[in-house]
Amino acid sequence: METARLVWSRLPHSEDGELDGVGILSSTSNKNSVESLDYEVIENYAYREEQAQRGKLYYGYNVAVKWFFALLIGIGTGLAAVFINISVENFAGWKFELTFNIIQKSYLAGCLVYILINLALVFSSVYIITHFAPAAAGSGIPEIKGYLNGIDVPGILLFRTLVGKIFGSIGSVGGGLALGKEGPLVHTGACIASLLGQGGSTKYHLSSKWLQAFKSDRDRRDLVTCGCAAGVAAAFRAPVGGVLFALEEVTSWWRSQLMWRVFFTSAIVAVVVRAAMGWCKSGNCGHFGAGGFIIWDISGGQEDYSFEELLPMAVIGIIGGLLGALFNQLTIYVTRWRRNYLHKKGNKVKIYEACLISIITSIISFGLPLLRKCTPCPDSAPGSEIECPRAPGNDGNYVNFYCSKDNEYNDLATIFFNTQDDAIRNLFSAKTIHEFSAQSLLTFLVMFYTLAVVTFGSAVPAGQFVPGIMIGSTYGRLVGIFTVNHYKKLNIEEGTYALLGAASFLGGSMRMTVSLCVIMVEITNNLKLLPLIMLVLLISKAVGDAFNEGLYEEQARLRNIPLLESRPKYEMRTMTAREACGNQKVLSLPRVVKVADVVSILRSNKHNGFPVIDHTRSGEPLVIGLMLRSHLLVLLQSKIDFQHSPLPCDPRGGSRAIRPNFSEFAKPVSSKGLSIYDIHLSSDDLEMYIDLAPFLNPSPYVVPEDMSLTKVYNLFRQLGLRHIFVVPRASRVIGVITRKDLLIEEDEDSSTMELQSTSVRAQRHERRLSIGNPDAERPLLNGLLLQDQNHTN
Amino acid sequence: METARLVWSRLPHSEDGELDGVGILSSTSNKNSVESLDYEVIENYAYREEQAQRGKLYYGYNVAVKWFFALLIGIGTGLAAVFINISVENFAGWKFELTFNIIQKSYLAGCLVYILINLALVFSSVYIITHFAPAAAGSGIPEIKGYLNGIDVPGILLFRTLVGKIFGSIGSVGGGLALGKEGPLVHTGACIASLLGQGGSTKYHLSSKWLQAFKSDRDRRDLVTCGCAAGVAAAFRAPVGGVLFALEEVTSWWRSQLMWRVFFTSAIVAVVVRAAMGWCKSGNCGHFGAGGFIIWDISGGQEDYSFEELLPMAVIGIIGGLLGALFNQLTIYVTRWRRNYLHKKGNKVKIYEACLISIITSIISFGLPLLRKCTPCPDSAPGSEIECPRAPGNDGNYVNFYCSKDNEYNDLATIFFNTQDDAIRNLFSAKTIHEFSAQSLLTFLVMFYTLAVVTFGSAVPAGQFVPGIMIGSTYGRLVGIFTVNHYKKLNIEEGTYALLGAASFLGGSMRMTVSLCVIMVEITNNLKLLPLIMLVLLISKAVGDAFNEGLYEEQARLRNIPLLESRPKYEMRTMTAREACGNQKVLSLPRVVKVADVVSILRSNKHNGFPVIDHTRSGEPLVIGLMLRSHLLVLLQSKIDFQHSPLPCDPRGGSRAIRPNFSEFAKPVSSKGLSIYDIHLSSDDLEMYIDLAPFLNPSPYVVPEDMSLTKVYNLFRQLGLRHIFVVPRASRVIGVITRKDLLIEEDEDSSTMELQSTSVRAQRHERRLSIGNPDAERPLLNGLLLQDQNHTN
Repeated sequence: METARLVWSRLPHSEDGELDGVGILSSTSNKNSVESLDYEVIENYAYREEQAQRGKLYYGYNVAVKWFFALLIGIGTGLAAVFINISVENFAGWKFELTFNIIQKSYLAGCLVYILINLALVFSSVYIITHFAPAAAGSGIPEIKGYLNGIDVPGILLFRTLVGKIFGSIGSVGGGLALGKEGPLVHTGACIASLLGQGGSTKYHLSSKWLQAFKSDRDRRDLVTCGCAAGVAAAFRAPVGGVLFALEEVTSWWRSQLMWRVFFTSAIVAVVVRAAMGWCKSGNCGHFGAGGFIIWDISGGQEDYSFEELLPMAVIGIIGGLLGALFNQLTIYVTRWRRNYLHKKGNKVKIYEACLISIITSIISFGLPLLRKCTPCPDSAPGSEIECPRAPGNDGNYVNFYCSKDNEYNDLATIFFNTQDDAIRNLFSAKTIHEFSAQSLLTFLVMFYTLAVVTFGSAVPAGQFVPGIMIGSTYGRLVGIFTVNHYKKLNIEEGTYALLGAASFLGGSMRMTVSLCVIMVEITNNLKLLPLIMLVLLISKAVGDAFNEGLYEEQARLRNIPLLESRPKYEMRTMTAREACGNQKVLSLPRVVKVADVVSILRSNKHNGFPVIDHTRSGEPLVIGLMLRSHLLVLLQSKIDFQHSPLPCDPRGGSRAIRPNFSEFAKPVSSKGLSIYDIHLSSDDLEMYIDLAPFLNPSPYVVPEDMSLTKVYNLFRQLGLRHIFVVPRASRVIGVITRKDLLIEEDEDSSTMELQSTSVRAQRHERRLSIGNPDAERPLLNGLLLQDQNHTN
Repeated sequence: METARLVWSRLPHSEDGELDGVGILSSTSNKNSVESLDYEVIENYAYREEQAQRGKLYYGYNVAVKWFFALLIGIGTGLAAVFINISVENFAGWKFELTFNIIQKSYLAGCLVYILINLALVFSSVYIITHFAPAAAGSGIPEIKGYLNGIDVPGILLFRTLVGKIFGSIGSVGGGLALGKEGPLVHTGACIASLLGQGGSTKYHLSSKWLQAFKSDRDRRDLVTCGCAAGVAAAFRAPVGGVLFALEEVTSWWRSQLMWRVFFTSAIVAVVVRAAMGWCKSGNCGHFGAGGFIIWDISGGQEDYSFEELLPMAVIGIIGGLLGALFNQLTIYVTRWRRNYLHKKGNKVKIYEACLISIITSIISFGLPLLRKCTPCPDSAPGSEIECPRAPGNDGNYVNFYCSKDNEYNDLATIFFNTQDDAIRNLFSAKTIHEFSAQSLLTFLVMFYTLAVVTFGSAVPAGQFVPGIMIGSTYGRLVGIFTVNHYKKLNIEEGTYALLGAASFLGGSMRMTVSLCVIMVEITNNLKLLPLIMLVLLISKAVGDAFNEGLYEEQARLRNIPLLESRPKYEMRTMTAREACGNQKVLSLPRVVKVADVVSILRSNKHNGFPVIDHTRSGEPLVIGLMLRSHLLVLLQSKIDFQHSPLPCDPRGGSRAIRPNFSEFAKPVSSKGLSIYDIHLSSDDLEMYIDLAPFLNPSPYVVPEDMSLTKVYNLFRQLGLRHIFVVPRASRVIGVITRKDLLIEEDEDSSTMELQSTSVRAQRHERRLSIGNPDAERPLLNGLLLQDQNHTN
């Protein structure tokens, strides 16, 4: 008897605390909405018993697996990025080569071929999305952000979503739409990480038993964080930027241990991408790999800046804030309109829509440069490497497009009738002062801005980074032109202003700060501009914040992903915990519960967690823990733990078989989980009982009823909780825990023990003793269980 | 009556939750130990009432002040850094110039002059430290880390410490010791921030009333975080690195709102330093300002690397891990020895010690190059800018020192008989293959490593960054020499290996990851080496972690600063909250307490917080809050709140004057606070009573007695708490708070309300109604207070 009691009381507790933070959300009829939210906490006694048997060796193995998975995520995301890049650049390169060859004979035929190729690519993309992987539409970053905030958007991390994202973004980016491949790459990285975390896709029989190491939700979330960082690192070839992006934008619960692993993943991505680019340099990959590791290298550009330049730079920041906020606002309207009118009509409309946008984009990008008069080439310095006009089909500035003379170029075609990467490279380029006329830039800005707004939200994978950079660098270069004209100094480069413009627009739209700054530095390899980028970002973010929220937050809201911000709302100051939980009736379960009662309780509401209440020997009620709906469903389905007696079971296992494997309590990431309506129970089953004690979480976090809601919010948000019990004020204080009580030294270095001497250490000693003398202490729950056993016997 | 009750129940709660995390620590006899720990939480009713009156306007004002302070911290730290740099570089430059001039005639006289100048500078430094600002010794980073973890090390943020740090580090760095000015600059930034936060130094009458905006401990901590980032940004001219350093190394409670402000501070520092350097370029600052914004620019160095090079780089990582761990271990021994034997003997010994170290350092750095044979200058390419031998007294490679011929140079003197910045620049320099012989590098490595270990812990301000970079780049360059000889490729630069070596040593010693990586990139302006730096850091940190903890953690431990790590210890899994608080008797106070009882309780123990217990109408005990020792002391000292009656006071203010200003409850940062033995009470006073209800924190966080200690630890650590009440299990659950209950929308956008519709909103409505109908709800504490009022009347 004593032994049994000790087993119950000495089970090691899960290190994770309560792991996740998904609330109960009513599902709506909207197809995009968040449906079932079913992360699970496994913290019941039995699971912990299993964990305890594994001990420290298992712990070490677990750490090793985590690092190995970080490596795999890095390699996987790096390869996916290389694959997407190779495909996109080859499709686009081949498209422009073909078109340039045809327009030597006929501009009309060239235009048609150009439109058709784009249409084919976009159609392939939208077809994949609508028929195969609907969750792969859009950038995916709001959804991932939601996932890491604790909200499970269905389908977002499936294998089919991964495949759809990769091939869909090849089609949409290769097809010349006003969108980028960076957001989708973040999603791709997250998908790879999540699939690894659940040990492969079960549906497609790609799973492996030994990979299923991660039953804890926190581990999976950590992997997805690594995946996000890897995605950014791969998209921009910016490893530090990736780490910071994951830190600043997507994660909600960051721990410094995780940082190091995320960093490792990013480094692996950088090595993989660099290796692939090295291999591609010898011409194995067609058009890909010419640019070098730094995407838009402007390290040879402007070296220094004077203080007078700060004014036009501040103007860029303000423009960025205004245009960015406007972009966010317009995309809200467009998305809402799409959702409410257009996309309700089914997949066909989505396909028509994407194809129409593709045709319009193609016509504008081909047609507008035709209307533009060509400019004579500038007198190039003898040592200059810039070719004017450049050879058709090659990268570089100064495209000769629809020009009457040979030594002329079309500045609008240079940016419009080009791949996005090349266009940005041209806009950022130094030593090309007066290449672009203000008129062309303005035309491009207006048209591209409109296209980006319209394209946003169509049913293709779409990132907003590259369009943002395009828009921003255009007005940046415009301001640069005016600055050059006004200050008449030679060391001002328009390309620098284009870079600042890009930073300002992204800052004004996405409201990222440190991570964006580092990404801008890493993609342009110009550290000296860092303070300027910071300045511009500060201004544009502040201006943008005056109007609305960031793009991802707005989009998350539109998609009904209720993000919990890190800061409690101002109103919460005047509210208490009891007010927050409102009039909802608390449905609690007794310790030993009839199956029929469980079924009726589960059917009567949508709550995901239920308090379990038992009675002490003297008959007083006592809250003994939290039981999760999903765990109840597992118990109902398996039926192993049903018992005939309404009395608590004997934990020594005499009366029933011990559950062999608790992995069934772990929640599959990508499926919906059980529903009470899927479970069929016979009338005999309904008459049976379940003893919940081994399966409940014995100590959920509690708050007193009149605690300020801001404090409750901080508790909930910072620990990533899912349920908090609101309880009456305590009648007594058993002890007060302070810093001193939490300082446990692992090594026995006596000289450092001066401070950590007293309670814990003494207590641990005592505890060791008490194992030999089990009557010395009686944990409360333990006492309860014991008492109930007495009843049984 | 109703009105009064409403006032009591409707006070807004402080947004911050519980603010700080200082435990009760027994003070030891050791002079270096942490003594009184007295951060304070101001969260009692009366203070909140004051806050509530100020409302949203005050909130906005507060935000503006925070940003303004961030600006001031940036400017202040930037200027301090410029001042230190100008002083150090001019002292050092002048010293080397003079010595070089003298050794043209006599090496002996030169040596003497060199030794004497160094001695004078070091003496000034150690004199300032020992007689004026003892807390300014060392790097200060462990102490700041402790402060931000919640431990108040006395004297660490005083005005005198700031002054001592600035002038002391000019002396110690200018005096050529094997230490750097970077760590002290971080401390300087933190001091500036903290002094701003408390509104200047009261002792030196530099305080200003309107600056004292920050009574909350969290705000002060945020400012100090900004100061740390500013220090790093100023020291390395690495703004992003500064932000990451603050994030990764020093803070314990990071919030994303803070990141943006820290980032702003760093940007300001960058702008200030750059502006100062621009001004100095015209020759206003003597030797300072020649180097440019990037300290050790190697952007012109190695462009690419091959996969075969990864092996020697991994070797560098392993060496870095081993030497770094050894460095940590040796410094522990040295520090412990110093503390136990040497520094017990008083200030004179400290001064002798520092002077002795200075003389030894001078002799070694002057003498060893004399023993070294000179090398003929390499045949320089016609276009090369490298001068050999360089003109004496100027920066650059190839020093002619004690050479028989004119076209020779002394490679050991190039690194040893030079300022540290120049030495590192020479070690990092590209296109100088075979400049250094392996023998010289090895000699330098052994000697400098020894000097750095010996110097560490002497009573001068001392950073470990620059010595770490020196050591690391030396063995890095050594490996580089072997690699160049082995692979015989032209595109391998020894300077690249030196950089990697520097990163590896810092990684192996300080165990920083992302921040170090970014700092290395920012100080060398070579983004392309980023993946290599990451690789080397990963290896060196992993190797180092196998042996001991990071330098700062070890030093914090030695100084009795008990840092709470972010991760709970493994042993905590098997412990419960009750076990952690042990046998300590809980001393609780009644709501209305006799002054004599308060005094005797405060004298009888060292606890910093006491539960306050009252009784309900039916006589049951009820925990109504937490009273802090420091607040009790304030009450005892002011005596305003004493009352004759042992019954609760009337909150309407009929019976006593309302306390005019609650700022006295705020704790001064840099003084020790009150002690019970400083307060003198008459025997009449002792017979009086205090009603604690207005002054207590009504809802401290509570945990049930059998909660796993890992969960308690997470709660404590992540919310930055100071006290947690361990209470019995609750008898009922009033409500369950889930994500849904915490989603309050500020705007009334109806389309997004689908999900956030139910409880909170309905509840808020109800609450508004209930203000008109005060009998509708009766918060528990409120009921208590009311009941007691009934008694009074």
